[in-house]
Amino acid sequence: MTDAPTRLHALRETLRQASVDGFILPRGDEHLGEYVAPCAERLAWLTDFTGSAGMATVLMERAAVFSDGRYTTQMEHQVNGLCWERLHLRETPPAQWLAQHGANARIGYDPRLLSENALLPFVQAGLTLVPLAHNPVDAIWTDRPLPPCTPCLEQPLEHSGTDSATKRTTLAAQLRDSGEDCVVLSDPASIAWLLNIRGNDVPYTPLSLCFAIVHADATVSLFIDPVKLTTRTREWMGEDVRTFTPDALPAQLAALAGRRVQVDPAANSVWFIQTLEQAGATIIRATDPCTLPKAIKNPVEQEGARRAHERDAVAVCRFLHWLDTEGVGTGELEATQRLDAFRKRCMDYREESFPAISGSGPNGAIIHYRVTPETDRILRHNEVYLIDSGAQYPYGTTDITRTVWTGPEQPDDDVCDAFTRVLRGHIALARAHFPYGTTGHALDALARQALWEGGLDYDHGTGHGIGSYLSVHEGPCNISTHYRPVALEAGMIVSDEPGYYRPGAFGIRLENLLLVQPAVTNGESRRFLAFEVLTLAPFDRRLIAVDMLNSTEIAWLDAYHARVFEQVAPHLDKVGQTWLEAACAPLRAR
Amino acid sequence: MTDAPTRLHALRETLRQASVDGFILPRGDEHLGEYVAPCAERLAWLTDFTGSAGMATVLMERAAVFSDGRYTTQMEHQVNGLCWERLHLRETPPAQWLAQHGANARIGYDPRLLSENALLPFVQAGLTLVPLAHNPVDAIWTDRPLPPCTPCLEQPLEHSGTDSATKRTTLAAQLRDSGEDCVVLSDPASIAWLLNIRGNDVPYTPLSLCFAIVHADATVSLFIDPVKLTTRTREWMGEDVRTFTPDALPAQLAALAGRRVQVDPAANSVWFIQTLEQAGATIIRATDPCTLPKAIKNPVEQEGARRAHERDAVAVCRFLHWLDTEGVGTGELEATQRLDAFRKRCMDYREESFPAISGSGPNGAIIHYRVTPETDRILRHNEVYLIDSGAQYPYGTTDITRTVWTGPEQPDDDVCDAFTRVLRGHIALARAHFPYGTTGHALDALARQALWEGGLDYDHGTGHGIGSYLSVHEGPCNISTHYRPVALEAGMIVSDEPGYYRPGAFGIRLENLLLVQPAVTNGESRRFLAFEVLTLAPFDRRLIAVDMLNSTEIAWLDAYHARVFEQVAPHLDKVGQTWLEAACAPLRAR
Repeated sequence: MTDAPTRLHALRETLRQASVDGFILPRGDEHLGEYVAPCAERLAWLTDFTGSAGMATVLMERAAVFSDGRYTTQMEHQVNGLCWERLHLRETPPAQWLAQHGANARIGYDPRLLSENALLPFVQAGLTLVPLAHNPVDAIWTDRPLPPCTPCLEQPLEHSGTDSATKRTTLAAQLRDSGEDCVVLSDPASIAWLLNIRGNDVPYTPLSLCFAIVHADATVSLFIDPVKLTTRTREWMGEDVRTFTPDALPAQLAALAGRRVQVDPAANSVWFIQTLEQAGATIIRATDPCTLPKAIKNPVEQEGARRAHERDAVAVCRFLHWLDTEGVGTGELEATQRLDAFRKRCMDYREESFPAISGSGPNGAIIHYRVTPETDRILRHNEVYLIDSGAQYPYGTTDITRTVWTGPEQPDDDVCDAFTRVLRGHIALARAHFPYGTTGHALDALARQALWEGGLDYDHGTGHGIGSYLSVHEGPCNISTHYRPVALEAGMIVSDEPGYYRPGAFGIRLENLLLVQPAVTNGESRRFLAFEVLTLAPFDRRLIAVDMLNSTEIAWLDAYHARVFEQVAPHLDKVGQTWLEAACAPLRAR
Repeated sequence: MTDAPTRLHALRETLRQASVDGFILPRGDEHLGEYVAPCAERLAWLTDFTGSAGMATVLMERAAVFSDGRYTTQMEHQVNGLCWERLHLRETPPAQWLAQHGANARIGYDPRLLSENALLPFVQAGLTLVPLAHNPVDAIWTDRPLPPCTPCLEQPLEHSGTDSATKRTTLAAQLRDSGEDCVVLSDPASIAWLLNIRGNDVPYTPLSLCFAIVHADATVSLFIDPVKLTTRTREWMGEDVRTFTPDALPAQLAALAGRRVQVDPAANSVWFIQTLEQAGATIIRATDPCTLPKAIKNPVEQEGARRAHERDAVAVCRFLHWLDTEGVGTGELEATQRLDAFRKRCMDYREESFPAISGSGPNGAIIHYRVTPETDRILRHNEVYLIDSGAQYPYGTTDITRTVWTGPEQPDDDVCDAFTRVLRGHIALARAHFPYGTTGHALDALARQALWEGGLDYDHGTGHGIGSYLSVHEGPCNISTHYRPVALEAGMIVSDEPGYYRPGAFGIRLENLLLVQPAVTNGESRRFLAFEVLTLAPFDRRLIAVDMLNSTEIAWLDAYHARVFEQVAPHLDKVGQTWLEAACAPLRAR
């Protein structure tokens, strides 16, 4: 079934057999995560659209693919406009489109692929929604890849810092305190953290896809393909973790009749809620209880993060040196391969933590740009180049963005003006001290004020949480214009990544990871927090308008660069050291 | 009934007659406002506690008065500890106290004095709550003052800027759009804004106490003592405003059977909801619809605010000059009288917009200090003095805080350090540019960052809204560590008042009022807002550690001081001009 109309036609046949007139197909998998395995790329298979955010809705007479502004062009390129309308997720929400074109239709959906929260707009639109027992795409996707089946391995104590029994005991005590019998976990990252296990089932994040029920007696029912489990891992998890095959899940949920079961309406698919309600369990809706403790890194994880960043810094600095001397003339794609090659020389490097964003000139202005052979662009002289990448080490996850000038001429003043405003925002956030209880949202303006002053801004968050050898995007904290009632706590790792994008011209983003730490100010009665900078790589001085920086900002930058040189130089060769020394020299002779 | 035990005993007798075992007495009146008329000072009459925030709970065997940390000492002084426990509102919430000591008691309350939101904690505590038809305090308060009865006068178009018919038509259209028949207003400030009327029923705010029902046909039923209404005011309001006596309210609400009635669960007393529900009306809970348009000042109100501030600045500068030359040796109380006397020389000055806070030395550290003859303290040499005051003019309301050093010696470095951090925060907020849609909460950290950096902070909001010849504290916007989902909009007036308080030593607060304006940055696609500073008075240079300011901050301060001199000096005598010139001179010879 190579052409889009054939696939869509076949899907409609399947829908007819299932006695529905329409279908909702989200991008996510059963775990509702950011990266999905090939077997769960149903949206891409059906519509050819490969963006990281999207949805399709199908009726008998018309069908539509939805994504956001990042992917407008990509959708036009990839999706066959003869059978698919191509729409904006927020401007024409899928639920609204269905209500308009299929008001009286029976709309099928796969309850394993949508959370209760994600289903809500469709419910509110007054649609007749029919949960389907089998996904109709799977019925026609004849060459569908097999589910991933990589070994599930232990995350040793020397990296995890806290043993699983301790984590489970704490969680079980919370369940008992709130009178609950168990909690259902769908997020493999939560289970990875709780059981100190890792896998390789999806790209970029070392997850073993599985589900779990954590009981109030601190035991766990783990639903996982037994082929993934080595004897060693079974021993590591111990006998308090009972393993089941994934198809045992319905029966085990049915056995929870009469119990009080905690479910996250955003992180569990609505299938769990429907199955549990049918079984006669009482649903307690609450946020996945692993989210917060997972975000608060223990001292071992903090030390691992520092080590990962020191390792990664060597690769990044070597790459920046290479870029500076040989980058012009290279393609954006090749540049990411170079960076990956430098990382592969680092001890313990496992894989990229996300697909690197490598944007030269105007491509840098595409915030979530992902270079493909079609868009690949050669780096030229005298332009801005943005590289956002990250790495997985067994003791920490990294994420760094640098923006450089390819030279050899001087950049225009307005480029330097924008770069310096981004840098000032970056520094203001990194330098912030703030009382316990402060949310990331409350700090967001610090990173934007210099840009705002110049009438500039950026349309993305300032910071996200990062896992410990887990997801590069991790909740619950963030630093954003959107309020979330989650206070920053000592041990959390967040990114500091203000930017500026001039469409058709260039993009700027400067990103370090920050570790929240108790502040060592002479605070009075009140306790304060501050950030320890984890990322180590120079900011391109050619793009800095030094006159726009005040003495505090210059002092911060000089101290940071001195630290970068001190920690990275010993790992470089002589030529690299000379390059780094110049890149890290004080901004002004003093 | 002069002694507290007698009054409490009498109240308990009345409760017995009403067949209840307890009573909840809040501080507010039927309008749930900040300042109440003497006849509504039930809490003060019963308990002797005169603080601006408080509550009493009475059971047959025990009784308690609650307030917050500001009033701990005052409660100890004023309230008879033999019959009243004296507790902290948040540490021992009244609902919790009642649940603990009167779990099986029937607890009476006056439904006209509590909003539905305020009643909620008592409901959630599982108490048996009995709404009382008559307030039991009123039954025993034999010498209770009469309700205020000042003339209700027009707020002319030259000050209000928009005629009432236009405001009512807009509001009525909103009601029709959401399918509602009418909205009940309890806040006299909302009614004052909507009908362009003012009165003098409570201190500090030019309100005429009344209730209103605004109908979807843009007519209004106004419930007000007819004695307050002059013929002129009746004509001014026109025939679309039908007037009723306040005791006609129950019958008029009963007539809304079957209608959809909008009620604010925070601004209307629960009595309205109970009465309407009993009548068979459908309650639509929503925020008082006058709150937002009232906060967005039209061009005439904006110009009035500028004029009010220019007038007020002359009085404040004369006061600061007097303080500088003759202040030491004066009492805190006399200082407020001096300031009021200077204001009385200003054209159109009506009254203080709140009781001035005049705190010398350690008294300045009491955030909501209100000088009384008992606490009055003589201003001494070489200490910090904080004066927070405001004024009502028929076209604008002011609110200004300055903190000065009495000299003649130099202040200690740590005082200057704290003052300069407060000043830097004040300037950072005043200078901020921000995109449309930004909340005050998102800007709050700008005013705190310099303090936070030094391990300092303040336990109050950074800014509140201010009325136009109305309340000095006005919703819905604020600038605070507490999130409120209200964006700042062009035309709003907010205060910028960071502070720092060292208990037992001194207090610092620096407050200007800011008018939100479209920014004239060369913003790109995005539109920005910025602040116009309304308040005009110098900041005490003796307390500024100039070395802690960067060049941008110095430039802002010099430009502000130059403007203060230019606008205020023409209204001063020669001696005053010389003083102001020195106070407003550039910080550094350049």
